[in-house]
Amino acid sequence: METANLLDLLRQIQSGRLTPEEGALRLRQAPFEDLGYAKIDHHRWLRQSAGEVIFGLGKTSPQLIGLVERMAVAGSRNIIITRLPADRADDLVAAGIPLTYHESARLGLAWADPVPQTGAVVVASAGTSDLPVAEEAALTAEILGSQVTRLYDVGVAGLHRLLAQQEALIQARAIVAVAGMEGALPSVIAGLVACPVVAVPTSIGYGASWGGLSALLAMLNSCANGVSVVNIDNGFGAGWIAHSVNRTESPR
Amino acid sequence: METANLLDLLRQIQSGRLTPEEGALRLRQAPFEDLGYAKIDHHRWLRQSAGEVIFGLGKTSPQLIGLVERMAVAGSRNIIITRLPADRADDLVAAGIPLTYHESARLGLAWADPVPQTGAVVVASAGTSDLPVAEEAALTAEILGSQVTRLYDVGVAGLHRLLAQQEALIQARAIVAVAGMEGALPSVIAGLVACPVVAVPTSIGYGASWGGLSALLAMLNSCANGVSVVNIDNGFGAGWIAHSVNRTESPR
Amino acid sequence: METANLLDLLRQIQSGRLTPEEGALRLRQAPFEDLGYAKIDHHRWLRQSAGEVIFGLGKTSPQLIGLVERMAVAGSRNIIITRLPADRADDLVAAGIPLTYHESARLGLAWADPVPQTGAVVVASAGTSDLPVAEEAALTAEILGSQVTRLYDVGVAGLHRLLAQQEALIQARAIVAVAGMEGALPSVIAGLVACPVVAVPTSIGYGASWGGLSALLAMLNSCANGVSVVNIDNGFGAGWIAHSVNRTESPR
Amino acid sequence: METANLLDLLRQIQSGRLTPEEGALRLRQAPFEDLGYAKIDHHRWLRQSAGEVIFGLGKTSPQLIGLVERMAVAGSRNIIITRLPADRADDLVAAGIPLTYHESARLGLAWADPVPQTGAVVVASAGTSDLPVAEEAALTAEILGSQVTRLYDVGVAGLHRLLAQQEALIQARAIVAVAGMEGALPSVIAGLVACPVVAVPTSIGYGASWGGLSALLAMLNSCANGVSVVNIDNGFGAGWIAHSVNRTESPR
Amino acid sequence: METANLLDLLRQIQSGRLTPEEGALRLRQAPFEDLGYAKIDHHRWLRQSAGEVIFGLGKTSPQLIGLVERMAVAGSRNIIITRLPADRADDLVAAGIPLTYHESARLGLAWADPVPQTGAVVVASAGTSDLPVAEEAALTAEILGSQVTRLYDVGVAGLHRLLAQQEALIQARAIVAVAGMEGALPSVIAGLVACPVVAVPTSIGYGASWGGLSALLAMLNSCANGVSVVNIDNGFGAGWIAHSVNRTESPR
Amino acid sequence: METANLLDLLRQIQSGRLTPEEGALRLRQAPFEDLGYAKIDHHRWLRQSAGEVIFGLGKTSPQLIGLVERMAVAGSRNIIITRLPADRADDLVAAGIPLTYHESARLGLAWADPVPQTGAVVVASAGTSDLPVAEEAALTAEILGSQVTRLYDVGVAGLHRLLAQQEALIQARAIVAVAGMEGALPSVIAGLVACPVVAVPTSIGYGASWGGLSALLAMLNSCANGVSVVNIDNGFGAGWIAHSVNRTESPR
Amino acid sequence: METANLLDLLRQIQSGRLTPEEGALRLRQAPFEDLGYAKIDHHRWLRQSAGEVIFGLGKTSPQLIGLVERMAVAGSRNIIITRLPADRADDLVAAGIPLTYHESARLGLAWADPVPQTGAVVVASAGTSDLPVAEEAALTAEILGSQVTRLYDVGVAGLHRLLAQQEALIQARAIVAVAGMEGALPSVIAGLVACPVVAVPTSIGYGASWGGLSALLAMLNSCANGVSVVNIDNGFGAGWIAHSVNRTESPR
Amino acid sequence: METANLLDLLRQIQSGRLTPEEGALRLRQAPFEDLGYAKIDHHRWLRQSAGEVIFGLGKTSPQLIGLVERMAVAGSRNIIITRLPADRADDLVAAGIPLTYHESARLGLAWADPVPQTGAVVVASAGTSDLPVAEEAALTAEILGSQVTRLYDVGVAGLHRLLAQQEALIQARAIVAVAGMEGALPSVIAGLVACPVVAVPTSIGYGASWGGLSALLAMLNSCANGVSVVNIDNGFGAGWIAHSVNRTESPR
Repeated sequence: METANLLDLLRQIQSGRLTPEEGALRLRQAPFEDLGYAKIDHHRWLRQSAGEVIFGLGKTSPQLIGLVERMAVAGSRNIIITRLPADRADDLVAAGIPLTYHESARLGLAWADPVPQTGAVVVASAGTSDLPVAEEAALTAEILGSQVTRLYDVGVAGLHRLLAQQEALIQARAIVAVAGMEGALPSVIAGLVACPVVAVPTSIGYGASWGGLSALLAMLNSCANGVSVVNIDNGFGAGWIAHSVNRTESPR
Repeated sequence: METANLLDLLRQIQSGRLTPEEGALRLRQAPFEDLGYAKIDHHRWLRQSAGEVIFGLGKTSPQLIGLVERMAVAGSRNIIITRLPADRADDLVAAGIPLTYHESARLGLAWADPVPQTGAVVVASAGTSDLPVAEEAALTAEILGSQVTRLYDVGVAGLHRLLAQQEALIQARAIVAVAGMEGALPSVIAGLVACPVVAVPTSIGYGASWGGLSALLAMLNSCANGVSVVNIDNGFGAGWIAHSVNRTESPR
Repeated sequence: METANLLDLLRQIQSGRLTPEEGALRLRQAPFEDLGYAKIDHHRWLRQSAGEVIFGLGKTSPQLIGLVERMAVAGSRNIIITRLPADRADDLVAAGIPLTYHESARLGLAWADPVPQTGAVVVASAGTSDLPVAEEAALTAEILGSQVTRLYDVGVAGLHRLLAQQEALIQARAIVAVAGMEGALPSVIAGLVACPVVAVPTSIGYGASWGGLSALLAMLNSCANGVSVVNIDNGFGAGWIAHSVNRTESPR
Repeated sequence: METANLLDLLRQIQSGRLTPEEGALRLRQAPFEDLGYAKIDHHRWLRQSAGEVIFGLGKTSPQLIGLVERMAVAGSRNIIITRLPADRADDLVAAGIPLTYHESARLGLAWADPVPQTGAVVVASAGTSDLPVAEEAALTAEILGSQVTRLYDVGVAGLHRLLAQQEALIQARAIVAVAGMEGALPSVIAGLVACPVVAVPTSIGYGASWGGLSALLAMLNSCANGVSVVNIDNGFGAGWIAHSVNRTESPR
Repeated sequence: METANLLDLLRQIQSGRLTPEEGALRLRQAPFEDLGYAKIDHHRWLRQSAGEVIFGLGKTSPQLIGLVERMAVAGSRNIIITRLPADRADDLVAAGIPLTYHESARLGLAWADPVPQTGAVVVASAGTSDLPVAEEAALTAEILGSQVTRLYDVGVAGLHRLLAQQEALIQARAIVAVAGMEGALPSVIAGLVACPVVAVPTSIGYGASWGGLSALLAMLNSCANGVSVVNIDNGFGAGWIAHSVNRTESPR
Repeated sequence: METANLLDLLRQIQSGRLTPEEGALRLRQAPFEDLGYAKIDHHRWLRQSAGEVIFGLGKTSPQLIGLVERMAVAGSRNIIITRLPADRADDLVAAGIPLTYHESARLGLAWADPVPQTGAVVVASAGTSDLPVAEEAALTAEILGSQVTRLYDVGVAGLHRLLAQQEALIQARAIVAVAGMEGALPSVIAGLVACPVVAVPTSIGYGASWGGLSALLAMLNSCANGVSVVNIDNGFGAGWIAHSVNRTESPR
Repeated sequence: METANLLDLLRQIQSGRLTPEEGALRLRQAPFEDLGYAKIDHHRWLRQSAGEVIFGLGKTSPQLIGLVERMAVAGSRNIIITRLPADRADDLVAAGIPLTYHESARLGLAWADPVPQTGAVVVASAGTSDLPVAEEAALTAEILGSQVTRLYDVGVAGLHRLLAQQEALIQARAIVAVAGMEGALPSVIAGLVACPVVAVPTSIGYGASWGGLSALLAMLNSCANGVSVVNIDNGFGAGWIAHSVNRTESPR
Repeated sequence: METANLLDLLRQIQSGRLTPEEGALRLRQAPFEDLGYAKIDHHRWLRQSAGEVIFGLGKTSPQLIGLVERMAVAGSRNIIITRLPADRADDLVAAGIPLTYHESARLGLAWADPVPQTGAVVVASAGTSDLPVAEEAALTAEILGSQVTRLYDVGVAGLHRLLAQQEALIQARAIVAVAGMEGALPSVIAGLVACPVVAVPTSIGYGASWGGLSALLAMLNSCANGVSVVNIDNGFGAGWIAHSVNRTESPR
């Protein structure tokens, strides 16, 4: 609660328009709704300028439907459900929820509401197999309102494919670089640009890639400036951060 | 090389002002200077709007002095040397290099040139022991031109210390969150704000912290949106990224 | 064998009521029953004030039925079977065993016998996906005789949800804090209370959560006082310990 | 802030004894004191019924002296400083701070104030080399007010040494079990008693003990009920928890 | 080739009964038979006093049938096939191979030939779930010719179950100790006896047992003398070694 | 682009046969073809003297068919598809692509074109279970043009099997040594020969082999000279390198 | 206590030569002596046919002197102190303890008493750097009474050095195989012999040997029968086990 | 022993020039010399066309001097001693051994004998800190007889520095690529060339580089063809292999 609101509340008590008991209740009253199995955070929009995102993995269809319905009733739009299995998506649609489902990215968008796309985010990926994670990042940034350029299959073992795209990279305000295996793409890209590069290791690989560990460590140890890293396969997180940078406005 | 410059060069060949052999040479000619043990990248300023940063660890004093001198000759100012041991710093000063040395952050600044500090970066740290890493981040962002607010010793085991600073957090354009041990600070902060949070795990701890592994994993697995992570103890990297976000201007 | 009983036995030998051979046999005679594949420990009640708990994983239905039947014959009630697959539970019921099965917690309770629930245990969980583990803890404590308050979906990325429950936390005599991913919940809770907090890392997460490793390490490295940790997903163990603390009485 | 105090404050505003502005200030005013490098949490006593404990590792002597002095001024007594190197202890004494230093446990006690020791805590350790960690646990529990019985060198490779102490174990209200290497002691003890066992893995060992990893994993995987685990070598944490259990009183 | 045989061969050359070419051929001629996908080692009996054992995992039924048939033709009996899936066993039987299949131990015995069982090997296991591994060890030792006593479900959380069997342990010439989870059984047993204890960690457990890592590390770090360790779940290997010790005769 | 070609292009501009704009376009024009989901690198033949290899894992049948068809149109022959599942291979054949499928090695060869096989590569493997990886290496080297000798089932536990093949080993120009479990084969072979040995750890094993980690570490730590290592199960990579060494010609 | 002794004691009670109280005392009386910091296990000789061994690491000189003196008073001879630093050894000698110190093996022998050496133990080591660990094993077995043959520097990269010693290996009753780096020696030796092979990984190596992990894993995954493993650098443990096998006599 | 020599020996027996006993002795006689602590392998030159290399780490000065002297007496020249500490080098020189010591590479060359340098090996390194390892590789290849081009400080964060050297790379017959941190250099280089690339991870880095693990994993997971990997910091091994490839001659 911001100081202004707090003062306002306390002045109402001072003036007698509110009893101390009512004031205490309001101060305690949390800005969330309790569904039993989940507590929806309706105030997140105020704190983060974006609605709540639902982590779909491990939730039952009834839980998902309940969450989306209550959020929609509370006015949420463009509700993102990440890691949503296809059959869960079917259940939501069957329950009457207006849902667009992006299968490769396993991402559902409920109660879509067109958002103008501005700025310049680039999502680059090293190999064809990294596509699902890259798409999760690209879709997330687009849904939140960023204009996204996709540069796919530009891995470092064929540098000219990447170098041919240098201009798109240079004009980006934020870049998501997705790679599995040796995870070298973010380092090479960050050496070419000035904006922040959000690196996403993927679990693509075999043997000593150990589910993405190799790419993760490589990215954390990048010798290039400007690289930060999110969890393995976390396309959503990277898209969120890239949008968050992209929407930054000149300081007042 | 940008397309405009390339066309210009090719037109000079067309017009005979340049022979093909000279053109080939210029196209091949790399924009760096070779000192034998290192190749200074004088064009980095063009690519990244910042001078080269020297990773001080494992370099001899003569190597460091050589690097700084050639960069200064080429016009570089505010040359940052990270992980610079105190005795190396003494050697640089003894060699006549104008150097400011920040001991706790092990950071040297050579050929300092005042830069106006704008925007709003917050550097928060969980414990007193995390201070050196936090300072490395704060100093880096300041040298690059960001205005920095320091919130130290605001770890999650005493939440009220952090919550009392909520307004500084909310007004930040980029936040660096530094923590060792269980590394929970970035998650808690990211739940309170909308701007990107750059998490820095530190090697502070003992036993099962395994040199910062515990904090690193916790940060990568943050359940809050907006958290990306840099290498353990990499205060410099986080400060660079925070500044990079902070200086972002409204899209044209 | 306590000294009193030992003396009694030896005195019987002295008085001739028992031969030395009989005495040796009794001293050797272990207070357990051998089913071949398992040795039921009927004396555990004396040692631990609670009946034997059956670890259901990897046992066949006939083994489980045999164990429960012999324990019931020996007088056991409220026999807990943890990690009991649904089909095994069906087999036990089909075999005529009175069994209540809690599916989400995969916990079976055979030969239930109402136990008065006293004291105050809180089971808090970070996310909806942590619910099965939290339920295993809550049910265990309840079956053993603790009064349990459930605080679910109070993860640290939305602190106000947790802070709104501060009074329940403060009144608890023991708290179980369940969390996956970055595992920060126990640290934050322990900073708010004085009673012991038993932390349960869960395998919820993906990528660098490595099956609960991230949460486990975070909890072991908690900067807050009062946090101890059990195995990943070990809701039963945490519930047992919380009850064990909760039933503690004032020292005589 | 508890509801009673909050209501009291709001009623003062209602009655005009406090202006809304003063009320807002008090509500915002955090109960800590800011030394720049650290924020002392003077209210912890209210929350945890114990003074702040200082983690000595990595703090300078001036920082330590400053912290202790301000805490003493604020009325703290029995200030525990853990992981305090001997030379730091000397500096504190030289600065006039009344300090008792326990060298083997690397634990300092400043401004000691006799506390009656009640209840029954047992601290058991497997080998002679585990002594420093065991002592840290025992001293901590004693300083906080628990009566402690020490059972040292009772490792599982010579069971009769442990079994000879069975009566002390059975009468304990809380047990700390300290072991390195294969870390089996807590399992064996927990099989003999009904009270909670706090297991402390130590870094004692070599080769595949990997700094305590072997003992840590063994303890987390204990097949006995009632075992929870703290960080490697964290004797302080275990002593704190054991005291916290030991002081539990019968529920009202 | 032993020196005696070598001399014999060379003397045949000297005496002209063998040409140098024939001699070279025999010296080169390896005592194995090449099936293309495998090279059967018919001389192993000479080197190891036991027939070749077939590692069944990952071999096709035709490969297994081919191997067993050629070994039988060469005179092998009591051919052990470890990690043999049930369906593979069916295929071997269908192919006319006389095979006894022990399902819980996944062990097949082809061309069984009664072997007198002598000496005294004990196979002890901690829990009911460790039974398949324990049985693999027991059956292996029995097939090779050892008399085996099984002590199952004697885990350290109920010491009296183990202590009641002390005499069988003391009379053993070699002991196999099988345990998952915290893997403490071998340490406790080795503290009671003088003969070698072969420890077998099992993958039984969950969470931080990491597929048997916890038990493996605990056993490697045993504080008791006389414990050596084989691979996780390697009941066969332990049974082989126990028999190998058991058949040792007094030195001449 | 080699200097000769570059000069040629620039001379065309000088002579007016090419406009600067056309020249810039050609210089920018990357030698790859963009299929959207993949960028085919038609120039790789120039750089690596071998066509592009397709990593089959995780690609859909339409993606695979599209890639092969465009490569064939561009003139590629002997297109290798690694880690190709059998059902994908069926789809390619059904789509009319001339494909030879090696099931055990999961390797497809499209548009096969006989290549003369020269030199001498040996592929040795430790056990029957390592066969698929060894075959992938052998087939790769053969397709690229190497003559390959296969030495299978020559593991170090039966040294005479390996020593009997010493002459084939000594005559090799490059050796691939494939082994799982303890991965000792490359060390033993490298002690016998002078040519490079490419070691391939396999995921064959169980328990503490941890998916090939044991063999990988053993090979990296080889005490023999001449051993380098590729990823676990990467038979293709080893075959490629062995061929690459084998085709080396005397320096001019 | 063996049954015979137990019966004897009980018969004394029966006959009145012992009161029940005295009997209880004797049964309770633990066969160890309590020095405060350690409990000497004087009965170990009965259980293990060998005196107590002192693990020297981390014990102070007074502790060591105290332990040895009390053991000598109780009649112990040939007291082994492992991991004894040279300066500690000097302190023991200065305190008048008759001590032989083997520096390379860091092993002290106090109150030496000639023991006849029988049987046949081989200690083989891969490299010169593994010598200290090999010597610890060899000395231990010799002190306990085994005749030991040392085969040093017989690593697998020069097989003929090992093969030249085949006869010594074949005649051994137990073999200790010591190796760092890739740890292949035990596998190769076990393939040549029939007796048990105790493998000792050493921490010799660098880089990816990770303190002996590579050798440890290789040995645990040995494809040869008869290999069991002790902790990294645990020469003492291996020597103990080898002696334990070597002294085995023909079953009665 | 090659077949020709074997036949010759056997024919001498046939003809009576050699007794069978003498023949057996010669066949057994190993081509090494036993110094007690080491067995010099004088035949290695025959097997590997290169003299024995001494691994200097962990050897005493007398051991090193003894080894070099006996090798020199046996005719060895250009004896390489790797990982030789400076003080050991001084001892060797003091002992009269003609030794050239390369300090940065910690490599000693005893009894140097000029070798013509042919072919073309490139040693490339990513950063200035990787220089010692790169030098070890370069010196090794030069001593063995390869012509070496050094390309230092060509890391991937400044691609133009590497691309400017493309012609040297393309003309190489074998390339050693040395990098720490994210280890991306070998992948990028291998994408540009056709010859084998031997990747050397270095321990340069901090935090999550974990002593070179990050670079090691990245290199093992390289998406480029032709990359094989040696141990962390193993410049010697890479130089050896590069030379081994470089000296390959056209197949006959």
